[in-house]
Amino acid sequence: MSETRPPIAVIIGAGLIGASIGCALSTAGYQVHLRDHKISHARVAAGLGAGTIEPPISVDVDLVIVAVPPGAIADLVVHSLQIYPNATITDVGSVKAGVLDTLWQRDLDLGRYVGSHPMAGSQHSGPMTAHAELFVDRTWVVTPHRRSAPESVERVRAAVRASRAREVIMDVDDHDAAVARVSHLPHLMSVLVAGHLTEVPERDLMLAGQGLRDVTRIAGSDPVLWEQILGANSNAVLEELRDVQDQLGLLIKAVEAASTTDELRSQLERGNAGTRKIGGKHGAAPVRYSEIVVAIPDSPGALARLFADVSAAGVNVEDISIEHDPVREIGYLALSVAPEHADPLIETMLAHGWAVS
Amino acid sequence: MSETRPPIAVIIGAGLIGASIGCALSTAGYQVHLRDHKISHARVAAGLGAGTIEPPISVDVDLVIVAVPPGAIADLVVHSLQIYPNATITDVGSVKAGVLDTLWQRDLDLGRYVGSHPMAGSQHSGPMTAHAELFVDRTWVVTPHRRSAPESVERVRAAVRASRAREVIMDVDDHDAAVARVSHLPHLMSVLVAGHLTEVPERDLMLAGQGLRDVTRIAGSDPVLWEQILGANSNAVLEELRDVQDQLGLLIKAVEAASTTDELRSQLERGNAGTRKIGGKHGAAPVRYSEIVVAIPDSPGALARLFADVSAAGVNVEDISIEHDPVREIGYLALSVAPEHADPLIETMLAHGWAVS
Repeated sequence: MSETRPPIAVIIGAGLIGASIGCALSTAGYQVHLRDHKISHARVAAGLGAGTIEPPISVDVDLVIVAVPPGAIADLVVHSLQIYPNATITDVGSVKAGVLDTLWQRDLDLGRYVGSHPMAGSQHSGPMTAHAELFVDRTWVVTPHRRSAPESVERVRAAVRASRAREVIMDVDDHDAAVARVSHLPHLMSVLVAGHLTEVPERDLMLAGQGLRDVTRIAGSDPVLWEQILGANSNAVLEELRDVQDQLGLLIKAVEAASTTDELRSQLERGNAGTRKIGGKHGAAPVRYSEIVVAIPDSPGALARLFADVSAAGVNVEDISIEHDPVREIGYLALSVAPEHADPLIETMLAHGWAVS
Repeated sequence: MSETRPPIAVIIGAGLIGASIGCALSTAGYQVHLRDHKISHARVAAGLGAGTIEPPISVDVDLVIVAVPPGAIADLVVHSLQIYPNATITDVGSVKAGVLDTLWQRDLDLGRYVGSHPMAGSQHSGPMTAHAELFVDRTWVVTPHRRSAPESVERVRAAVRASRAREVIMDVDDHDAAVARVSHLPHLMSVLVAGHLTEVPERDLMLAGQGLRDVTRIAGSDPVLWEQILGANSNAVLEELRDVQDQLGLLIKAVEAASTTDELRSQLERGNAGTRKIGGKHGAAPVRYSEIVVAIPDSPGALARLFADVSAAGVNVEDISIEHDPVREIGYLALSVAPEHADPLIETMLAHGWAVS
């Protein structure tokens, strides 16, 4: 990278992730060129300040970021290595080994490829909601391999820092095992629970509560995208699935023998331990908050009045959640506050006429 | 039940459920007597208007509601049948067959027992947060058996209606199968995912997101209570676990063969179908809402200002969720609104200086 001009980046794929990286790098002084096979996406991203749709001079490109669906990554990395002879290439796919294996099998300049994975922004898919702050303080994993050139690793790390993300360096296989554990396995378990509901009599769902909704929420994600993700990480995912299969076998034995062994209890306690391990808010040790439940009418302004009244109590709300009543047009709002704030808050809310439990 | 005096009810167990039923029935004109082996619980409940701690005249009692942990229910139902000779006995346990089996094995007046299960209030356990509205429009299942006397069924149904719950009549075994499907199985799957985290390297959790938290939330519940619930419903739970075990076997085969069959895709689509089956807000068909994400500082009043600004836009917020940034002291608030309200809301929020994505 020349010292006398700004770094030049090409972003291939102007969806939420690509366009947001474009915004972040442009803000940080990069000259960003956007490419997308949907020219409208590239134009929208350019309009948001993510870069220009003008093509770059190939030999001048320092960094290429491939931000396309998993199934298309490897080909575009190969293509980029070929047409941008001086560029470091990275991708933002959620699985890293497959792309590397593909490169390994071909006669390519592997030193110029360094994978990465920003952990942000999975809910939206188009560039419309892109913004430069998407990665601020989010984990962005960089996965060098044994032939990665040090200057290539540094170019990718510089882009991560320029996006104000939290940089984590991991081995490719360690990364893929980690996402199999904390993302792909939970996803498939959610799919199993949700899929099981297709066999359940309609009437049983009258008895369903928030727990079922929480467990099955991510099973509502795009099957096409997830088929690609899981296909790309099948070995790591299989290892976790087989481990859970073993645990499920033990769990079934434990339920069969519930009255004669402590195995069921210890499985339940192991679940408790796992939830504690994820930790609480802001990465800190889990804190027990007091929860106050308020009934809210489902009308414009109700939440505003409610929060204005909470605010008047001078209490910091640590977390909130809403449960909707399946029949009445009202919701229940759960406010989590530090235990010492619970009583004053309850008093204030009652004084303002809210139904508090 | 005499026509000339109010119905007399005894509630055994003055926790959240028992005390709330006491409040609801007292409000509806019942004379309620509270019993709890923790006298402080009964006193708190009485102070909240749930009834009196004075003992009733045994022969006058019309209805006994046993609201104690699962493992203690059967004995207290038997005891109540014996000491309240004219009363209908119900319980509020989340599993129904075990109690009935216990009664069946003994020489008892089965006609006076009718089980029930109100679907409310699992988050809090003491009487402190009890209130008369807890069951309003919540499902309350009544489970008559083949020897239940019609007048006993009617007394329980009357109490359900007096609590303003939504009455659902189900066969005992159908009920237990239903809760196994929509509650106990999802709980155990959450336990498996959370329990698996205990084997995961600490560093992997840097890559964890909201999906993992959602799937594992209910695994944080009380293991002692859940051991009792699962033990009481082990046959129905085993049936569901074995079905999921079969599906997990198919899923593993599908991931193994991902590139050569459509099985993985169809499993993922089956999960989608299951989430759609639970339905959207207010029991209506699922609606696609537009989601607007706003960054909020973690300080008193921020949510109030935010919702005041949302309110000023005249837009009805259908749902909200907060994700906390694990490092920075801010959160992200996702506002779900009808698609046609998204653009006006975004404009208003930007005009008020919020960071919107």
